[in-house]
Amino acid sequence: MGGFFGTVSQQSCVADLFYGTDYNSHLGTRRGGLATYHEDGRFTRSIHNLENSYFRTKFEPTLDRFVGSKSGIGIISDTDSQPLVINSHLGRFAIVTVAKVQNLNELEAELLAQNMHFAELSSGKTNQTELIALLITQGKDFVDGIENVYRKVQGSCSMLLLTEDGIIAARDKWGRTPIVIGRKEGAYAVTSESTAFANLGYEIERFIGPGEIVRMRADGIELMRKPEECMQICSFLWVYYGFPTSTYEDRNVEQVRFESGRIMGSEDDTDVDCVCGIPDSGVGMALGYAAGMNRPYHRAISKYTPTWPRSFTPSNQEMRSLVAKMKLISNKAMMRNKRVLFCDDSIVRGTQLRDNVKVLFEDGAKEVHMRIACPPLIYSCPFIGFTTQKSPMELMTRQIIKELEGDENKNLEKYATTDSPEYTKMVEIMRERLGLSTLRFSKLETLVQAIGLPKCQLCTHCFDGSSCF
Amino acid sequence: MGGFFGTVSQQSCVADLFYGTDYNSHLGTRRGGLATYHEDGRFTRSIHNLENSYFRTKFEPTLDRFVGSKSGIGIISDTDSQPLVINSHLGRFAIVTVAKVQNLNELEAELLAQNMHFAELSSGKTNQTELIALLITQGKDFVDGIENVYRKVQGSCSMLLLTEDGIIAARDKWGRTPIVIGRKEGAYAVTSESTAFANLGYEIERFIGPGEIVRMRADGIELMRKPEECMQICSFLWVYYGFPTSTYEDRNVEQVRFESGRIMGSEDDTDVDCVCGIPDSGVGMALGYAAGMNRPYHRAISKYTPTWPRSFTPSNQEMRSLVAKMKLISNKAMMRNKRVLFCDDSIVRGTQLRDNVKVLFEDGAKEVHMRIACPPLIYSCPFIGFTTQKSPMELMTRQIIKELEGDENKNLEKYATTDSPEYTKMVEIMRERLGLSTLRFSKLETLVQAIGLPKCQLCTHCFDGSSCF
Amino acid sequence: MGGFFGTVSQQSCVADLFYGTDYNSHLGTRRGGLATYHEDGRFTRSIHNLENSYFRTKFEPTLDRFVGSKSGIGIISDTDSQPLVINSHLGRFAIVTVAKVQNLNELEAELLAQNMHFAELSSGKTNQTELIALLITQGKDFVDGIENVYRKVQGSCSMLLLTEDGIIAARDKWGRTPIVIGRKEGAYAVTSESTAFANLGYEIERFIGPGEIVRMRADGIELMRKPEECMQICSFLWVYYGFPTSTYEDRNVEQVRFESGRIMGSEDDTDVDCVCGIPDSGVGMALGYAAGMNRPYHRAISKYTPTWPRSFTPSNQEMRSLVAKMKLISNKAMMRNKRVLFCDDSIVRGTQLRDNVKVLFEDGAKEVHMRIACPPLIYSCPFIGFTTQKSPMELMTRQIIKELEGDENKNLEKYATTDSPEYTKMVEIMRERLGLSTLRFSKLETLVQAIGLPKCQLCTHCFDGSSCF
Amino acid sequence: MGGFFGTVSQQSCVADLFYGTDYNSHLGTRRGGLATYHEDGRFTRSIHNLENSYFRTKFEPTLDRFVGSKSGIGIISDTDSQPLVINSHLGRFAIVTVAKVQNLNELEAELLAQNMHFAELSSGKTNQTELIALLITQGKDFVDGIENVYRKVQGSCSMLLLTEDGIIAARDKWGRTPIVIGRKEGAYAVTSESTAFANLGYEIERFIGPGEIVRMRADGIELMRKPEECMQICSFLWVYYGFPTSTYEDRNVEQVRFESGRIMGSEDDTDVDCVCGIPDSGVGMALGYAAGMNRPYHRAISKYTPTWPRSFTPSNQEMRSLVAKMKLISNKAMMRNKRVLFCDDSIVRGTQLRDNVKVLFEDGAKEVHMRIACPPLIYSCPFIGFTTQKSPMELMTRQIIKELEGDENKNLEKYATTDSPEYTKMVEIMRERLGLSTLRFSKLETLVQAIGLPKCQLCTHCFDGSSCF
Repeated sequence: MGGFFGTVSQQSCVADLFYGTDYNSHLGTRRGGLATYHEDGRFTRSIHNLENSYFRTKFEPTLDRFVGSKSGIGIISDTDSQPLVINSHLGRFAIVTVAKVQNLNELEAELLAQNMHFAELSSGKTNQTELIALLITQGKDFVDGIENVYRKVQGSCSMLLLTEDGIIAARDKWGRTPIVIGRKEGAYAVTSESTAFANLGYEIERFIGPGEIVRMRADGIELMRKPEECMQICSFLWVYYGFPTSTYEDRNVEQVRFESGRIMGSEDDTDVDCVCGIPDSGVGMALGYAAGMNRPYHRAISKYTPTWPRSFTPSNQEMRSLVAKMKLISNKAMMRNKRVLFCDDSIVRGTQLRDNVKVLFEDGAKEVHMRIACPPLIYSCPFIGFTTQKSPMELMTRQIIKELEGDENKNLEKYATTDSPEYTKMVEIMRERLGLSTLRFSKLETLVQAIGLPKCQLCTHCFDGSSCF
Repeated sequence: MGGFFGTVSQQSCVADLFYGTDYNSHLGTRRGGLATYHEDGRFTRSIHNLENSYFRTKFEPTLDRFVGSKSGIGIISDTDSQPLVINSHLGRFAIVTVAKVQNLNELEAELLAQNMHFAELSSGKTNQTELIALLITQGKDFVDGIENVYRKVQGSCSMLLLTEDGIIAARDKWGRTPIVIGRKEGAYAVTSESTAFANLGYEIERFIGPGEIVRMRADGIELMRKPEECMQICSFLWVYYGFPTSTYEDRNVEQVRFESGRIMGSEDDTDVDCVCGIPDSGVGMALGYAAGMNRPYHRAISKYTPTWPRSFTPSNQEMRSLVAKMKLISNKAMMRNKRVLFCDDSIVRGTQLRDNVKVLFEDGAKEVHMRIACPPLIYSCPFIGFTTQKSPMELMTRQIIKELEGDENKNLEKYATTDSPEYTKMVEIMRERLGLSTLRFSKLETLVQAIGLPKCQLCTHCFDGSSCF
Repeated sequence: MGGFFGTVSQQSCVADLFYGTDYNSHLGTRRGGLATYHEDGRFTRSIHNLENSYFRTKFEPTLDRFVGSKSGIGIISDTDSQPLVINSHLGRFAIVTVAKVQNLNELEAELLAQNMHFAELSSGKTNQTELIALLITQGKDFVDGIENVYRKVQGSCSMLLLTEDGIIAARDKWGRTPIVIGRKEGAYAVTSESTAFANLGYEIERFIGPGEIVRMRADGIELMRKPEECMQICSFLWVYYGFPTSTYEDRNVEQVRFESGRIMGSEDDTDVDCVCGIPDSGVGMALGYAAGMNRPYHRAISKYTPTWPRSFTPSNQEMRSLVAKMKLISNKAMMRNKRVLFCDDSIVRGTQLRDNVKVLFEDGAKEVHMRIACPPLIYSCPFIGFTTQKSPMELMTRQIIKELEGDENKNLEKYATTDSPEYTKMVEIMRERLGLSTLRFSKLETLVQAIGLPKCQLCTHCFDGSSCF
Repeated sequence: MGGFFGTVSQQSCVADLFYGTDYNSHLGTRRGGLATYHEDGRFTRSIHNLENSYFRTKFEPTLDRFVGSKSGIGIISDTDSQPLVINSHLGRFAIVTVAKVQNLNELEAELLAQNMHFAELSSGKTNQTELIALLITQGKDFVDGIENVYRKVQGSCSMLLLTEDGIIAARDKWGRTPIVIGRKEGAYAVTSESTAFANLGYEIERFIGPGEIVRMRADGIELMRKPEECMQICSFLWVYYGFPTSTYEDRNVEQVRFESGRIMGSEDDTDVDCVCGIPDSGVGMALGYAAGMNRPYHRAISKYTPTWPRSFTPSNQEMRSLVAKMKLISNKAMMRNKRVLFCDDSIVRGTQLRDNVKVLFEDGAKEVHMRIACPPLIYSCPFIGFTTQKSPMELMTRQIIKELEGDENKNLEKYATTDSPEYTKMVEIMRERLGLSTLRFSKLETLVQAIGLPKCQLCTHCFDGSSCF
């Protein structure tokens, strides 16, 4: 997925840019980058690989290069190298994107045919952000160019442009990914995750609307394009991606998780000794569940954060398995002879969950019940660059559907309907394969209720196949 | 403090040594080291600075050097560079220690007078581990040498010796720091923290007793010196240092923390909306407190683990403050208009806590109540190398005692007595200075009850000044 | 300046590419880069900063990435980061250039106006090589594009293009910089310096002509554009830039230097004890001078090659001075009471030479005579990116002309005429300021005679102002 | 071999220490190290591996750590890690050595039996410098301890000790390796190679005598032990190891080489076209040879110094071969149809020379004559740590003697006698195997005459087997 941060200040922007970008680290694991603009007209850029080390470790030694700049943008990227610094008829600008371009090949062919060139090749492939930059430079000005991106790109694209006159922030036309503006004395900031503001002294100013474009200077915000009426913000942000202290569209992540757990828990009369969460994304829901069920919450599994810190999943499968195995430590002393109820955010392949359940029984648990924060994942996401969902057939649900129907694409809407016979059968098969005592998913209505936005403003495509380009 | 890990196997020991040592990372932040013994007679050693990066990041590129070895030891050290590889009349051996040598200067002078030399100088000072190695080489054999350490060293010293014939593990004479043995098919391991065993497939075999010395080979354990009768294991291990999934003397850390919170909570009738823990060490207690009080547990403060992972406190004060400020993120959305009760492990200087409390009120909390997992820290520790307790006068309690008595060493036993007038006055001053609504500390009896060992086996020196050399 | 190397082989090209590029290291000190093409369609690229370390030191650890490729290009660059990998309507290609684009700003403006963009910014400035790549992509095919470069660029440009079908080599339209082709069993190579061939087993096949374009595959050379009739190859290559074992247009560098010294020496009746060369570029001439004068050659100054290896001058003036001071060591024992005659390649500012002369007298020399391998430098070079000649006024000659004429641009042709009154006066002032016993420059005729090509094929602009765009 | 540098100044010593140590780089390729003493009582030390990069490249980033110190020592080591910082009953001191301890194992056993220990293990073996430090600490003061080294060590040992009160310099008892003292305003320096003084402003003060010990402070030199009467300085220093600008015992290296070539050349009536030197160590002699024969000197082989800078031979054979192949570039243009006479310093195995000769003929030479600066190497050196001479049987001479006599140790004195029948036969076989037109070695008398010291003061063991412990 990825997350960005930008700031324009009357003072040096370097410390805020550095820490603010770092606070997006849970959104990506491949590349980190910073670019700043200096009053003498120079742009300074630095990009590092984050697959072996952390953002701060990599960038701290190079911060000297940015000293003196008052505006800058940064990115934690799960895909291409960013930021790019582009010179064009619109002037020079640096760009970062949180985007997924489904029709990359078509757009690339179209641009090459117009005699444009690509100079950035990430791992030998066209850099998605350069393609977006080229679509922008086809416009007669920045707004026209960004509207060209809105028209052409299938998928989604939110972006920051660092120009010689402030930062331009443009949220995806459907608002699938969020952007929030913060303000403090003498400076504005803009980021994917409001978590980045808390310790840097920024107050949330407002959330940028779908398709909205603003220019941010140290002394104010200028509206360049009004927001669209319709929004389709990703509901999975609250379930999985968001850091607990982040807030999107005024709805706090931890509150949503607690509330969704509380609602489910208050309706659950399973007889258990304690409630537990799979760290990290299952914990918020589980705390609500414990409150809803009126049972104690136990840390039966701890994450070894001192050196396995990343909550996000690396893109390489072997590394993903190793991290999954090594970072979570089961606490046998608290499990022995207990009937435990666990909460987790979602089930993709189910492989890690099955391993976890096995360990819990080996460590002495009498029963292991599982509750999931969202409905079953039936459709893969065409809108956002999720690391974990490559193709529909990687989903545990689809594999079962294929076995039952002979075709993984058949009757999907039935399996997506809570408590339909197909749904019930599928969930029972999942329970059995995962070795669980019981397994229940949140209803879509419960999730929507916990988020607290109108259903029509949320993208719930991965659960029910709704929303489209 | 520091933690070590050693293993002897019939197969390659490298992967277990690497991950096992890494699982001691919460115990130190300055140096990491590995040493292995190869069947061709070579010792291989590697030491890295951990102040800027993590153990695995630093050591992963060098693992090739250790390939093929079947026995090895590793250390996460908060002080000197380790392991050392020593050649002596006892043969060659590598050594790691978890130790504090109070009488370092006296012992150094004594050894120099006997024409011995020191070749390792950590930051220009004598390396404590080399001094311990020299005391060992004064013995006629390893056991005699280790007993020389027991006799001479004031403070404490647990150690592992990697020899040409297995690993010798020797626990501090008073058992102030723990050592636990694990076993799996074809291999034995030994470590400070049983957490290291869970994901590597080792079962806890037994806990080494105070002053006990054993030799560990791939096929068995040989007793070289019987344990002492008396034990004085540090009670603060359960309160602060231990990782939740670790177990010392058969008492699990998370269980002790939950239980101490539960007892205190069940006796607490303060009217609050929720219970919260200061991450990470206050969480276990707070979950018990919530259960004891029958209130929901909320994550009103989150730790940004993706890149501020270390729960342990760095030795440099400026860095400590920065980490304290940046790693914890207050969740305004969950705090607003709430009466919150927080649990934390202990109060040393109180500076970070005061800052945290200030932020909580700024973020909208109506009341902030604080509960501490142990009695007030009145005495500094002469036995273990705690990073955080340099001199008594750094303790908030002593500063108040100095103000009240004109002498920071006066009437300490009165201030250490729960509910004495002096105690009550001191705690009230602390509450006021920290800006808290209410402040309560655990009673020593409650802590001892939660740990579940006889009081006489626990060192509670930092609370009541008991225990001595 | 810079130098490149490319090779296409039936086998792996990596070792030849690595060493062949390294053998161009005397031509640049800022950036090194490699790009290879893999049969699966990938391009792999790597660029490193060479200001602190050496090409081989930087690239050796990354060679794994190139394994398996059979064609590749490399560059030692004194200016921008190279190679670039470009995707365009012509397909994908990597490019390296040895070029100077005098009209960079004009061409940049022109391309931006056509809606093209620049994505590479070296130190915040437009990357000259990207600009050249854009000029190429304006063509309907590669030859048409390269001819566009020939038409548009003022200065010079030789280049290699690594394509999906072999390497395209194109020499500057006027042949100001050289390209030579080598051949061995199963492979062709192409480079700036034939020195690169000797130890890799390539025989010189032929020298590419001015404006000539060829495509090189593992099994042969295809002519894509015939050479121009006229050539203006830089005569200063033989004087200063070329490595002694290199050959341009069939004339070996060391031979030219020896011969130019021999001719001058045979006409010089100054009474001296020995002849010496200023390392490295003065040595070849001095050996010929010693032979021509029939005097012994002495190494009165040695270069400390073990760690001050680079014969080329770094672009930073402070570093240049330090290197100049530290790398040369005067041998007092061989200087004492001697009348010594030194040879050097040229005089730019004269500052280092003056310091050297001072040291020689301090070390006991009775007389120090200086002979220069070329005529005085009067004009700065508009054609080639020489590090040392930034602006005319940095030339010692121009400063003197300004003092004498009140205008540094006045009567230049007179000062450029050997033995004219102005020339004689200028040289005498130089002699005095440099503290020399006598000072003589080579005549242009002597230099041309030593090189052995017709005067009309040589660019002698820096001496006499001839040659133009 | 290795070389050291030390300096005591009234100002900061860091720059001089850094460059002065670097100027010993031609003497070693494995480890570099610096140690300084700070007025607050600290010693700072740094050691780096030089096998992949250069001294200055490795140490430049760490120089900050030494800032403020006024005394320091440095080493380029071909063997163990140095300097060591030792604490002992003599106080704290840092130590560097240029030494070879033949009886290392015996001395180690002796010290271990006395209950001493070794903490430094270079590549798993005892660190020779630590052993020497232990022998020193057995003395009642530094002089007594150094005399203990003189008594016990078989081989040789020169050393510098950085103490809290200046630097103690002690030359090997037989003076096999040199030490020279330099002086400038406010500072003294001491080093293996006087070359280090030239560019740092030091004048040679005097050469330390065999077995002499001095203490050097910023304001003067104190004699601690008088020199021995007898000296056995290594004659091979002038032939091979020394940098041309260095001077030992008042005899300059380049002068000795030129003179030895001149004497041989004036007696040589072979009819050749030119004289050439194998870079670097054959060049000085060849320039004298050309003068003695009255023939021109040509650079028919050039060393690619820009990136193959080290004149010294790496310890690894494969790397040695690669460097030998890649660093020298034959200049075909100057060789074709020529009768060339080459000079080289010595013949060890002869393998590289044979390869060079082959290339010269392939490049068109008609005749290749070889002249060697010293007599044939018959005995390996028991005194100095030469990289290139591991065992006698690696010598080409011994292999031939074994073939001829059936025993490589038989009749050695005969083969060592110039112009004896055995000598003549051996040299003829060498000539044939090396593929040379003619081959001649210098007579021992010629070498001694060129050096200019009495034969009795020179160690000529490798030529004639004289000198002993």
